[in-house]
Amino acid sequence: MLSNGVYVLTSRSEDRYGAATVSWVSQASFKPPLIMAAVRRESNVFECLAESRSAVLHIVGDRQQEIARRFFFPTRAGGGTINGEPFAEGTTAAPVLASLPAHIECQVERIVETNGDHAVVILRVVEAECRDRVRPLTMADTPWIYGG
Amino acid sequence: MLSNGVYVLTSRSEDRYGAATVSWVSQASFKPPLIMAAVRRESNVFECLAESRSAVLHIVGDRQQEIARRFFFPTRAGGGTINGEPFAEGTTAAPVLASLPAHIECQVERIVETNGDHAVVILRVVEAECRDRVRPLTMADTPWIYGG
Repeated sequence: MLSNGVYVLTSRSEDRYGAATVSWVSQASFKPPLIMAAVRRESNVFECLAESRSAVLHIVGDRQQEIARRFFFPTRAGGGTINGEPFAEGTTAAPVLASLPAHIECQVERIVETNGDHAVVILRVVEAECRDRVRPLTMADTPWIYGG
Repeated sequence: MLSNGVYVLTSRSEDRYGAATVSWVSQASFKPPLIMAAVRRESNVFECLAESRSAVLHIVGDRQQEIARRFFFPTRAGGGTINGEPFAEGTTAAPVLASLPAHIECQVERIVETNGDHAVVILRVVEAECRDRVRPLTMADTPWIYGG
């Protein structure tokens, strides 16, 4: 009964890209602006952000469930796309997906070691852009139940 | 554009009670079940949970905005109530509010020091009860904007 949004988290470490749909995300501070995200340690995106110390969190619009679904699958980057979605390089060099309405570019402030099956990543916002003020997609809007 | 639920977090340290409406909360692990919450360091509830190492996270139902509003104000406990809401002692001795539909009793696993204005608290679930499977209240349902 916890309420969560649906986001796409991306990162890049040199030639390797990681992107995944995530929902365990919340703001964690106003000053400085921090975000906390629980991310599977075995995921491509976690390995990329742990190495490069940067990541981009994308808001998904309420009519973009199909785009979020593409990032349930293993990351395939090539030809200027990740899992079929075009991207550009952000200020941190992590990929910014063009089709999503807003994104937050972050530096990894800290990776918290817990005894859980997800790492808690504390992200510091370095840039943000809202191109389209849509209603954000939430887990409650979808038929999905996050199972890890 | 991040999506958040609305919760009431309570704690007790000996004779002192803390209770506050919080929204920066997410699950952080399945095994063991962990929750992460960003909590103002100056709040009564933070001081209580840092001392007692226990807390209760309550789900608020979508028609219970008025109850959540009561926990915007400083904690006043007495006569078996906190801010006017009756409570019972949970398995951790932290107060369980009777009027809210579900709650999760937690031990404090870790308090993460960040340079932010909120502490990131990692909570381990020790007990949970759902008395009424309501639709949970979210920040998007309310006119509120969390300003710290």
